[in-house]
Amino acid sequence: MNYIDKLTYPILLGLSLFTFSNSIAQKSISKKINQESTKTSIVSYEKYIDDNNDRHIKEFLELVSIPSISSIPTNKPDVVKTATWIVNKLNSIGIINAKQLTTDGNPVVYANWDKAPGKPTVLIYGHYDVQPVNESEWDNPPFSPIIKDGKIYGRGASDDKSGVITAICAIEAILKTDGKLPVNVKFLFEGEEEIGSPNFKKFLENNKELLKTDFAVTADDIQDSETDPAITLSLRGAAQLEFTVKTANSDAHSGQFGGKTPNSVLIMSQIISSLYDKVGNVAVEGFYDKVLPITAAQKEMMKRIQYDPTTDMKILGTTAEVGDPAFTPQERIWYRPTLEIIGMQGGYTAAEGHSNIIPSHAMARITCRLVNNQNGQEIVDLIVKHIKKQCPAGASVSFKYRPGYASPMQYPTDTKGYQYVADALTAVYGKQPLQMATGGSGGAMLSFKETLGVYAYSLGFELPDEKWHASNEFFRLSSFRKGQQVYCYFLQHLAEEESKLK
Amino acid sequence: MNYIDKLTYPILLGLSLFTFSNSIAQKSISKKINQESTKTSIVSYEKYIDDNNDRHIKEFLELVSIPSISSIPTNKPDVVKTATWIVNKLNSIGIINAKQLTTDGNPVVYANWDKAPGKPTVLIYGHYDVQPVNESEWDNPPFSPIIKDGKIYGRGASDDKSGVITAICAIEAILKTDGKLPVNVKFLFEGEEEIGSPNFKKFLENNKELLKTDFAVTADDIQDSETDPAITLSLRGAAQLEFTVKTANSDAHSGQFGGKTPNSVLIMSQIISSLYDKVGNVAVEGFYDKVLPITAAQKEMMKRIQYDPTTDMKILGTTAEVGDPAFTPQERIWYRPTLEIIGMQGGYTAAEGHSNIIPSHAMARITCRLVNNQNGQEIVDLIVKHIKKQCPAGASVSFKYRPGYASPMQYPTDTKGYQYVADALTAVYGKQPLQMATGGSGGAMLSFKETLGVYAYSLGFELPDEKWHASNEFFRLSSFRKGQQVYCYFLQHLAEEESKLK
Repeated sequence: MNYIDKLTYPILLGLSLFTFSNSIAQKSISKKINQESTKTSIVSYEKYIDDNNDRHIKEFLELVSIPSISSIPTNKPDVVKTATWIVNKLNSIGIINAKQLTTDGNPVVYANWDKAPGKPTVLIYGHYDVQPVNESEWDNPPFSPIIKDGKIYGRGASDDKSGVITAICAIEAILKTDGKLPVNVKFLFEGEEEIGSPNFKKFLENNKELLKTDFAVTADDIQDSETDPAITLSLRGAAQLEFTVKTANSDAHSGQFGGKTPNSVLIMSQIISSLYDKVGNVAVEGFYDKVLPITAAQKEMMKRIQYDPTTDMKILGTTAEVGDPAFTPQERIWYRPTLEIIGMQGGYTAAEGHSNIIPSHAMARITCRLVNNQNGQEIVDLIVKHIKKQCPAGASVSFKYRPGYASPMQYPTDTKGYQYVADALTAVYGKQPLQMATGGSGGAMLSFKETLGVYAYSLGFELPDEKWHASNEFFRLSSFRKGQQVYCYFLQHLAEEESKLK
Repeated sequence: MNYIDKLTYPILLGLSLFTFSNSIAQKSISKKINQESTKTSIVSYEKYIDDNNDRHIKEFLELVSIPSISSIPTNKPDVVKTATWIVNKLNSIGIINAKQLTTDGNPVVYANWDKAPGKPTVLIYGHYDVQPVNESEWDNPPFSPIIKDGKIYGRGASDDKSGVITAICAIEAILKTDGKLPVNVKFLFEGEEEIGSPNFKKFLENNKELLKTDFAVTADDIQDSETDPAITLSLRGAAQLEFTVKTANSDAHSGQFGGKTPNSVLIMSQIISSLYDKVGNVAVEGFYDKVLPITAAQKEMMKRIQYDPTTDMKILGTTAEVGDPAFTPQERIWYRPTLEIIGMQGGYTAAEGHSNIIPSHAMARITCRLVNNQNGQEIVDLIVKHIKKQCPAGASVSFKYRPGYASPMQYPTDTKGYQYVADALTAVYGKQPLQMATGGSGGAMLSFKETLGVYAYSLGFELPDEKWHASNEFFRLSSFRKGQQVYCYFLQHLAEEESKLK
């Protein structure tokens, strides 16, 4: 049985109120999803979750304290240490075959609980690597996490160690309560998500049989708010590039040489400025060629989300929104591509001191978010062409490619996988999930579909204000509890519904 | 007797070939300046210099090894340590009243040898503070100096610890050979030249009597090449400024917020680009208002210097010269003002890693070189006004002022001070010094004239390729020897000539 085919699920269930007019329409769910048996189990799992909360928080802090920064090669031992930590944790709850599988990059943590023969298999994806840090900007050291006001502060607390620990602790609750799981479960935690999952697709292809599954969820995802559940139906792609402008072999005395010597920071600034037009669109030729118009269905979906421009502005402390006024800010985040300079440095920039030099070289890093048919490699090629063209006499430009471009991704809603996730969120939050897009990317998501034939639906509990990638990242302990509840409900409910289909 | 008045010196000497058609014209010096007595003394000083060369080089290395970076507050102990080192060195050669004098900033090293009553006094200026370093760019650690191929490599080796040690070792040679000096000598080594001598003028004013002198030279200056002596007759002024563009309170996830969130690095790049017009002139309104046309005399002076564009380009490894083609590169360096971005940073720029953020703030530092009637404060005000005007909605800009603006400076050539320096250089190099301008600045130079009534002529031996302010700075040991010879000759010659005037 192919569990991910476009579904006759509602019909099989005999729930006449399900209508699938189009793949992204919000569903009206009226059936009693809280079957009595599921409800009863959930109560006992909740007791386990609460009884073990202090220990789990300690473990959460331990996990966050390991600086598994995948983009910094010298942190590789910490990346491996984190994978080992997760393997040990899985072993400790009774999943004894947990192990690290090698890839061309960082290891993948894999574990398999397969003692429910005849039952479907659910694969839970997450990532244990984290973004780098600007240590000086953190109120508390990023890898010495603390609990404050019901939140855990530290790098990766939200993105995505919250996902890893929430899923594992939920499984622990079921295993320790019932002595077994209602379905077969596979864990797959990768260590290169934050660098674009460059080796993940190949890993999936090489391990197709091992990873075979009926359903998949990603623990690296978001809800709309503490009280509003959501399911992500659209991800932007991502592509990144670093380049350096060089004007001389060494910095020059600004007096001795100033007036005839090219300045790498000025030239870099001019190149960066040339990447945008006046309204804030990307001025790279061909950048928008494969971007499609926003569809009526997408517009419909956006209408259902209450967009308040002040919410994000409050989170960030911004005072204005920028971008092409031909699109709403929400459209620009969800369905339009971007090109951002994520960092730039040239010359003497130590905190103190003033060195009177003409800088010989300047470096900048770019990240693009892509949509529709935009291809990471093609976009990088266009940007390289643009920058080369802009580079004036007296300067040369070199590029550092960072492979691992994520493709844009769309999810259907007329699948059983979608419905089980929606049911679980509805049960725990007491309201139906919003259907959302996100401006973020998930390099692995398209690979799941292409390689294993499953959509990995969002079952993560990060919230938009939790400063992913930024300083002072945090995660709510309330989400930690709620997340475990949802996972428990999801597996139990999926098992029951699937058994009815037999 | 006022030794620095515009001079009747050549007439008194009866040297009819001196003509002072204008204050910057190159002089034809035909008199036999190498008087026999001076020559004899010089030979014995040279013997002392050579006999003690190894020890002096050791001391030079010691001096360079102390990181007296004046622009970094935490290096203050090293700044004081360097001042103490110099005081000890002066004590050791018999100048027992050497001491540190306090200023509102770093101490000034002062010493006075006054045992030549009735003889004129010569004040020797230099500075013992140094520029900061980009440590990773040095082939050898900047404060663990080494000797290689007849050069000493280290921060400050050329600018200006070479000047300090050369002058002191020359005085040592005379004192140890003759038991006395031919004139009275005052040493004045400041510790804030690299931050624009912000407290130096006040120090001079407060110590006018103590510092009273007939002649002055600066040991912080250059020659044209190893074989071509030069005297600097024009310095540009300098003014500096730091500013920060802020768009948010924290960096933002480039996916979650990218498309509507202002990017501080982009805005900084646009502001920097706006500071220049298309030909490379400064686009700040009013920037050139007080710049005077280049005079015929200045053009005449430039003609005498063989300008080879490839020389500087080889030193730096640049591939093109930039700037307004209405002026020659030499004119642009000597007589036109500049605005250079000396450093810029924003976002995630650690050597490794790739952080997908929209940077919340970006910082840039500016140094201007000024000419003619340009005033540092006025220029900074104009730049601040320009930047504020360019700062768009969604961003704010803040400024960090770095006081200590150096005024532009011109030296006359029709003074005895000029002539004695020229004579000494001619004697040692075997050819007359070139009259030069420099694009550099010397904050203290105008203060000498205004406060003590003397011009401090250039008597330094730095060479243009010695990477002042840049990485891998060095100084030639051949210049160390030649410099000591010139100082010995200069003092001996000055004493003899002045005694004739009595």
